[in-house]
Amino acid sequence: MAVYFHNKSSLSFVLGYLLLRNRENGSRNALKPMDSEQLREHGHRMVDFIADYYKTIEDFPVLSQVQPGYLHKLLPDSAPDHPESLEQVLDDVKAKILPGVTHWQNPSFFAYYPSNSSVAGFLGEMLSAGLGIVGFSWITSPAATELEMIVLDWLAKLLNLPEQFMSKGNGGGVIQGSASEAVLVVLIAARDKVLRSIGKKSLEKLVVYSSDQTHSALQKACQIAGIHPENCRVLQADSSSNYALRPELLQEAVSQDLEAGLIPFFLCANVGTTSSAAVDPLAGLGKIAKSNEMWFHVDAAYAGSACICPEFRQYIDGVETADSFNMNAHKWFLTNFDCSLLWVKDQYALTEALSTNPEFLKNKASQANLVVDYKDWQIPLGRRFRSLKLWMVLRLYGSENLKSYIRNHIKLAKDFEQLVSQDPNFEIITPRIFSLVCFRLVPEENHEKKCNNRNRKLLDAVNSSGKLFISHTALSGKFVLRCAVGAPLTEEKHVKEAWKVIQEEASFLLSK
Amino acid sequence: MAVYFHNKSSLSFVLGYLLLRNRENGSRNALKPMDSEQLREHGHRMVDFIADYYKTIEDFPVLSQVQPGYLHKLLPDSAPDHPESLEQVLDDVKAKILPGVTHWQNPSFFAYYPSNSSVAGFLGEMLSAGLGIVGFSWITSPAATELEMIVLDWLAKLLNLPEQFMSKGNGGGVIQGSASEAVLVVLIAARDKVLRSIGKKSLEKLVVYSSDQTHSALQKACQIAGIHPENCRVLQADSSSNYALRPELLQEAVSQDLEAGLIPFFLCANVGTTSSAAVDPLAGLGKIAKSNEMWFHVDAAYAGSACICPEFRQYIDGVETADSFNMNAHKWFLTNFDCSLLWVKDQYALTEALSTNPEFLKNKASQANLVVDYKDWQIPLGRRFRSLKLWMVLRLYGSENLKSYIRNHIKLAKDFEQLVSQDPNFEIITPRIFSLVCFRLVPEENHEKKCNNRNRKLLDAVNSSGKLFISHTALSGKFVLRCAVGAPLTEEKHVKEAWKVIQEEASFLLSK
Repeated sequence: MAVYFHNKSSLSFVLGYLLLRNRENGSRNALKPMDSEQLREHGHRMVDFIADYYKTIEDFPVLSQVQPGYLHKLLPDSAPDHPESLEQVLDDVKAKILPGVTHWQNPSFFAYYPSNSSVAGFLGEMLSAGLGIVGFSWITSPAATELEMIVLDWLAKLLNLPEQFMSKGNGGGVIQGSASEAVLVVLIAARDKVLRSIGKKSLEKLVVYSSDQTHSALQKACQIAGIHPENCRVLQADSSSNYALRPELLQEAVSQDLEAGLIPFFLCANVGTTSSAAVDPLAGLGKIAKSNEMWFHVDAAYAGSACICPEFRQYIDGVETADSFNMNAHKWFLTNFDCSLLWVKDQYALTEALSTNPEFLKNKASQANLVVDYKDWQIPLGRRFRSLKLWMVLRLYGSENLKSYIRNHIKLAKDFEQLVSQDPNFEIITPRIFSLVCFRLVPEENHEKKCNNRNRKLLDAVNSSGKLFISHTALSGKFVLRCAVGAPLTEEKHVKEAWKVIQEEASFLLSK
Repeated sequence: MAVYFHNKSSLSFVLGYLLLRNRENGSRNALKPMDSEQLREHGHRMVDFIADYYKTIEDFPVLSQVQPGYLHKLLPDSAPDHPESLEQVLDDVKAKILPGVTHWQNPSFFAYYPSNSSVAGFLGEMLSAGLGIVGFSWITSPAATELEMIVLDWLAKLLNLPEQFMSKGNGGGVIQGSASEAVLVVLIAARDKVLRSIGKKSLEKLVVYSSDQTHSALQKACQIAGIHPENCRVLQADSSSNYALRPELLQEAVSQDLEAGLIPFFLCANVGTTSSAAVDPLAGLGKIAKSNEMWFHVDAAYAGSACICPEFRQYIDGVETADSFNMNAHKWFLTNFDCSLLWVKDQYALTEALSTNPEFLKNKASQANLVVDYKDWQIPLGRRFRSLKLWMVLRLYGSENLKSYIRNHIKLAKDFEQLVSQDPNFEIITPRIFSLVCFRLVPEENHEKKCNNRNRKLLDAVNSSGKLFISHTALSGKFVLRCAVGAPLTEEKHVKEAWKVIQEEASFLLSK
């Protein structure tokens, strides 16, 4: 059909009409944001992009070398009015985003603790994003709640946790976003449990205990929960106990507080501290917590993974005295961030503190108490289907492979430790237990301050090389270098190469 | 090379030795959890699995019809010792997981508010999982922090938010996991700001204000922050104001509290409540908040998205008086869950309340105050690279398409509203503003209780059909049905079909 227009204004009238019609019948020519064939085509391209990234991941500097504000100069000031192509976006990812990425998955990433990404974990994330459900209540996707209960029970078995942490009785496991959220929810549960019996005006009397090696997440949780800062007992741990909290010290502090009319209510112990992977003696500490009716939380965010190996299970001996136990599957257990596993013995302590029950969320299954609604076990309402990725890791790898994976990293860390201890310029600061090695350049003539500065310079030099990324901490005033083995791609050669770079940079520094 | 064994015991010795060697040199034959070619192969299969899911998504009952505990019967009690194949896992997803999924992305999902998944959002999630970074501090991936600042500025511009919410000065935007976390962090910031000046013992005097239509997230945030429940003013909103909070009511409550020696410190207003999408008058409320030095938070979790359209921007007029503003890009803005956008005028109020600065996270850029470290703007330490998905949504769709997308849903909701209002058995409960329609079967002879039961039965019947999923709420004691249009695949035919099913189920009920 041919249409002829007599003049320009007729044409613009018709065009205007068509535009209006198009706008009113928006659904006809409009954006199709979830077209299955576009998802297929673009999804395949993204898979290739990511596979290619991993193929070339060793070509990037491990620690990003950009300057603050770099991206602002590269991107426009406003969102585009009209669509751009996936090609343009991926080109920008390559040219503008990747230079600003610190490559946590690079095999020479030895900083902090690892944050494992694996094929299984990645597939689980894809599937979770693909299904696009929000599992706050059982009814909003029963599979999300039930799979979570099941895989947390699987993990509890692998860790040989006491039965009370499993979903059969009053206990159970739940996936939190992070260890920070885990310690916050149990702190709130413990706070409200005690305040329900003694009255909320006693908040100012509540006392929290932990060693000075405990993660800053506890301090933050206390800030949020309104625990008075002067009631946070940060007990000193030093080299005499390999930075573990000594039960005598806890007992002393508790007794003093009781005498002063205060109320000890929460103890956080560590299995694998952030600074040096120190392990607190759970049994001894738990006994004191129990006899004082305190909530006993165990933070095994990093080292918990190792405890699936029978030879490392000893480090959580005493966990039977704990009220809650936390391990991050997203650290060293091949499950992409975020996936922090929390088990509690008394789920009702959590739900009494964190439940809300608005009309718009009521449903038969919840009202009849037939189901778990995980919204009442966590801070946010919404939650992703995170159990999928943990389930896929467990099934696609199997527990025996997972144990070998952990053992291999520990072996590599042992190798690194040996290399360090053979070099007279260096010293090991605290005995290695898992896959973290704490070391430094030795001081000259006991000059500690100078030594700290020298190690700080070494850290900068090593990380600026782009060849590896290590981090640091302070132990008893010493500036200490940390080499944490645990990235999924790390092999023997990367550890050896890392040590070579450290030695070279050290030689250069020492020669100056 | 051939090796001969003289007897069985020699053979088993050698095998044992090889096994031991293999175990010690774990890296040789061990699990390769991040092999780029396996990622490519398995990633492609997962993309096809998800694309096929979307192709057939209308074949599933929208609301899962399984019974509590169904999955426990289908899965083993323990994790497997040895690997299973991706095929086995995907078969189980089909046979065991999908029946327990409530299909939020089904075009006939009209319950709660939507949780949009789109191709762009999905690609962003993939890329984020693929890069596997943890962006707590700037240094841990500068691109993650900087892209987040940039896209939040883009959104602020699209929403025409005041300049003070942008990253240039003291303000800025941040991605939280959910609106619950957003309101919690600003509540904590506000609490600590006021307690810093009047002393922490005054906690018990702090008063929070909101309408009774406010999301339960505020109540939960108050519980967590230790605000005394008797100091939470839940002000009644009714049909006379279309469930908006009347400023006179707020003024009255504030005056009474001041007279009683209490300290008004936090006001939460809504743009698009969960029950009925009611809009509080921001300008009038903000004036009262300002003159009483209260923190003024605006929760526009759902309806904020609509405000990028000039014709809907009026609903956030008055936002210039707010201290913080929240909108969930994961609801109605095509960005996969989770992606809750929070803007604040005073970033230092947040960071003063939520900062920790342990030695192991110190670095030059942070110590020199050259950068933003988002860990201090949120509850958890760790954070995913969530800005990628929002950036991809904005670039792959463009703001004009996003406006059309929103307008189309609002048009479809208008159509649904018209269909309801033409049926004498039904009534519209409160005027529709955005894409939510609140309606119910009319009562017979003003018998409200009977009417509530009948509507409850209708809800059950409709949802049990599996053909669509709607939810409910209570407004002034009335049991009300909610139809929220907003799933990315929803078209005119789905809305018409939904109404047909509701009418049929209603006829059946009424005929009994």
